Amino acid sequence: MIKLNCDLGEGYGNWQLVDEALVMPYIDMANVACGFHAGDPLTVHRTVQLAKAHGVQIGAHPSYPDLVGFGRRSMACPPEEVTAMVLYQAGALQGLCAAEGTQLAYIKPHGALYHDMMGKEEVYRAILESVRKMELDIPVMLMATPEREKFETIASEYSVPLLFEAFADRRYRPDGTLTPRSETGAVLQDAEAVVEQVKNIAAGHVVASDGGRYPLQADTICVHGDNPHAVAVIKEVRKALKSRRDDLEAGDRL
Amino acid sequence: MIKLNCDLGEGYGNWQLVDEALVMPYIDMANVACGFHAGDPLTVHRTVQLAKAHGVQIGAHPSYPDLVGFGRRSMACPPEEVTAMVLYQAGALQGLCAAEGTQLAYIKPHGALYHDMMGKEEVYRAILESVRKMELDIPVMLMATPEREKFETIASEYSVPLLFEAFADRRYRPDGTLTPRSETGAVLQDAEAVVEQVKNIAAGHVVASDGGRYPLQADTICVHGDNPHAVAVIKEVRKALKSRRDDLEAGDRL
Amino acid sequence: MIKLNCDLGEGYGNWQLVDEALVMPYIDMANVACGFHAGDPLTVHRTVQLAKAHGVQIGAHPSYPDLVGFGRRSMACPPEEVTAMVLYQAGALQGLCAAEGTQLAYIKPHGALYHDMMGKEEVYRAILESVRKMELDIPVMLMATPEREKFETIASEYSVPLLFEAFADRRYRPDGTLTPRSETGAVLQDAEAVVEQVKNIAAGHVVASDGGRYPLQADTICVHGDNPHAVAVIKEVRKALKSRRDDLEAGDRL
Amino acid sequence: MIKLNCDLGEGYGNWQLVDEALVMPYIDMANVACGFHAGDPLTVHRTVQLAKAHGVQIGAHPSYPDLVGFGRRSMACPPEEVTAMVLYQAGALQGLCAAEGTQLAYIKPHGALYHDMMGKEEVYRAILESVRKMELDIPVMLMATPEREKFETIASEYSVPLLFEAFADRRYRPDGTLTPRSETGAVLQDAEAVVEQVKNIAAGHVVASDGGRYPLQADTICVHGDNPHAVAVIKEVRKALKSRRDDLEAGDRL
Repeated sequence: MIKLNCDLGEGYGNWQLVDEALVMPYIDMANVACGFHAGDPLTVHRTVQLAKAHGVQIGAHPSYPDLVGFGRRSMACPPEEVTAMVLYQAGALQGLCAAEGTQLAYIKPHGALYHDMMGKEEVYRAILESVRKMELDIPVMLMATPEREKFETIASEYSVPLLFEAFADRRYRPDGTLTPRSETGAVLQDAEAVVEQVKNIAAGHVVASDGGRYPLQADTICVHGDNPHAVAVIKEVRKALKSRRDDLEAGDRL
Repeated sequence: MIKLNCDLGEGYGNWQLVDEALVMPYIDMANVACGFHAGDPLTVHRTVQLAKAHGVQIGAHPSYPDLVGFGRRSMACPPEEVTAMVLYQAGALQGLCAAEGTQLAYIKPHGALYHDMMGKEEVYRAILESVRKMELDIPVMLMATPEREKFETIASEYSVPLLFEAFADRRYRPDGTLTPRSETGAVLQDAEAVVEQVKNIAAGHVVASDGGRYPLQADTICVHGDNPHAVAVIKEVRKALKSRRDDLEAGDRL
Repeated sequence: MIKLNCDLGEGYGNWQLVDEALVMPYIDMANVACGFHAGDPLTVHRTVQLAKAHGVQIGAHPSYPDLVGFGRRSMACPPEEVTAMVLYQAGALQGLCAAEGTQLAYIKPHGALYHDMMGKEEVYRAILESVRKMELDIPVMLMATPEREKFETIASEYSVPLLFEAFADRRYRPDGTLTPRSETGAVLQDAEAVVEQVKNIAAGHVVASDGGRYPLQADTICVHGDNPHAVAVIKEVRKALKSRRDDLEAGDRL
Repeated sequence: MIKLNCDLGEGYGNWQLVDEALVMPYIDMANVACGFHAGDPLTVHRTVQLAKAHGVQIGAHPSYPDLVGFGRRSMACPPEEVTAMVLYQAGALQGLCAAEGTQLAYIKPHGALYHDMMGKEEVYRAILESVRKMELDIPVMLMATPEREKFETIASEYSVPLLFEAFADRRYRPDGTLTPRSETGAVLQDAEAVVEQVKNIAAGHVVASDGGRYPLQADTICVHGDNPHAVAVIKEVRKALKSRRDDLEAGDRL
């Protein structure tokens, strides 16, 4: 069944965004902040312990060094600096994972680093280079995109596997890209609409902004947990996926 | 032969203290900054690469989070925060080491964290706890002290080995403690005096502030490399140790 | 009438503790974070604008540089560094105040710096020195204390006026000091108890932990606004003070 | 006579780039770091004291918040954040100036913020807005540019005066722009060549990359002081300007 991933560990010292114990039971993969956009060591350690306790996979969620901007602003770093910062952050998280008897399962860049990975080949390569050098044989998570093959071809040069993610609450366009946030209807506000989209993605397609149904190939779906409403939506999404799994399992028995 | 350890990787972005390529050939162990008092990812990555190239062992040099104070000011952190910050920083460095095909050889806390380790049992235990949880089977480096047994007893509870270091350029007191910096003669300025002390430590003793010779048991000697004069002294120290080794080897042949 | 002061501007980028627009109508003085324990420029600017709009006095709330620890951990800074960091932070806030046509009304150190001010004379003097050098003729706010005279004598050397604050929700001991947080009953949880204490302080006394009534001389009362419950309590406190003022005014008319 | 401006205060805690006492005697204007790319409070305070002692004008040198990148990387901040960060940093420096009985004389944005000011109108306007709101009636320093009028027209909307600076060690192109650093000969290495260019700029022109002489209108010349060689060059430049002044004065007497 398709997995739900969620950004976590995004507090910092006195500031905590959400009670993570409420989210963990409903997700499969936790993208854990590594200190550069959020996530001081103690916060991250607790998130790791919680993920471990709930059997949730832990992925590194490295960022440009921009605490005040929450890693959302692109910074023109040379490739060797990107590689070093990903190695540093993933290593830090892996250290906390190892201390709890678990380990990193994947790397999902955060914020502006994620967007630069999708849009600037040298950033994408710098990230792949860091993951290759880790020798942990773990995948990079990136955005499900019509250009999937281009990304796969480059990743194969580094022998790094990929995971493609779709977004539960973003309206897709017919070409498989996201409707820009500046446009009306870019974000699905309604729990029901989100659940519907998740079911569609799990079945391999989306209903796009033009009302048409288009194929979308995703390995995982990103959900949000950074406010109480979001947490409520996650529960609905999980319930929907569960019943779907039950249906499939019932079908399997026939 | 007794090993020389030296604090390195202590630049930060645009600020670099010393040309580390000048130091690496003369030392055995590099205590590498991990980002909290110094050491951005790129700086640390380069130090790791250089240490690897020179066959120098790499130790994590974690600190309290205090960039502006260079980690020299004690911060009253609860034990679980100390444990998490050591795991985070050592993990980050280990990630950069693994990327270069090498690995952490030891942990040596930095600055105020080092002093708190020596003076506050709960800090010492929090550090041991982090090293135990790493499961890398590596030692903690601490100050050669008349209370050696006390530290060994506690470390054995955590099954963490210890390394004791002496200081090349600090005047010892008869009781095996350091002459406080506030007192005249606390720091040996002269290269010759430093070389003499290093030879003595290598032979298992020091000439203390009262002129008497007292035993001092050390596994490694700390030297400084953060200015051109210091680098020159390291060369002299290395030369002295080398000839000593040659003497011993000559003696072995008899 | 006695004034209510409240710590505000304590968000940082993506992290915001409370909707400050809910608090401003009920307080008289805003202790505004200056960037070292919380308060990025945009957050602080908005808090200043809001305070200005509500006619609330703005005080600088400078801290040791410890974002991850929220300024709650003492750091052994030499006096000239304390003076410089207070000047820097107060200046930054004054710059934002001036931009809005208002100005700093007082200085209230935050967290560990506040506690060190009360407990270490060299820190207290370093803060007074900074306020003297500002030449804004504004007071320092410190804790109402049985040692009031000692603090006044020292402040007079610097020609810096003082404001003494009492705490709405902390249980006092008979000697005028606070019951340590480690003891049961140290913090008044109940809105009614807080309102009662505020009324008492406004009348010049407290009911201490032994049930006795003791004099307490305070110029202002500190209330908290960093969570929804706290905001609700502030409203009750304000209502109580208002009716008290009305009573007094009614009495004045007689 | 044309004034020399120089970036100073660019150390951070333990890291100090240069002995500023060697530079101050030879410059007229110090662009002082304000903490976001460099410059902790104590470092800045000392730079302010030194500038005051040498009768050197003090300008704020605000930056994007990027300590590890030394403020050299553009960050996409919304205009209100740029305005707030300039107010914050200039205010902090003004606070330290006021404490020493002096005051800010101008604002010169640093690094990527400087380049964005020249290239992105919304950033330029955000900076002008902050200076307008300061009500200190001080100018913004920007790059001497063939588009001078465009910048002046916009600045007049904010009633903010401008200062245009030329660079002592950068080769100009015939159109009045700088030769990009990627091209050979972009930076004048030789002290003699720098001195020659300074004399030319003081006389209202430059010898450009094509060997031709072109007019260049500048109010001040930027020199560098961040390494011993640079300091030596400043002395030569000052000597050259001094003799020029002497010539002029001699001429005046005729």
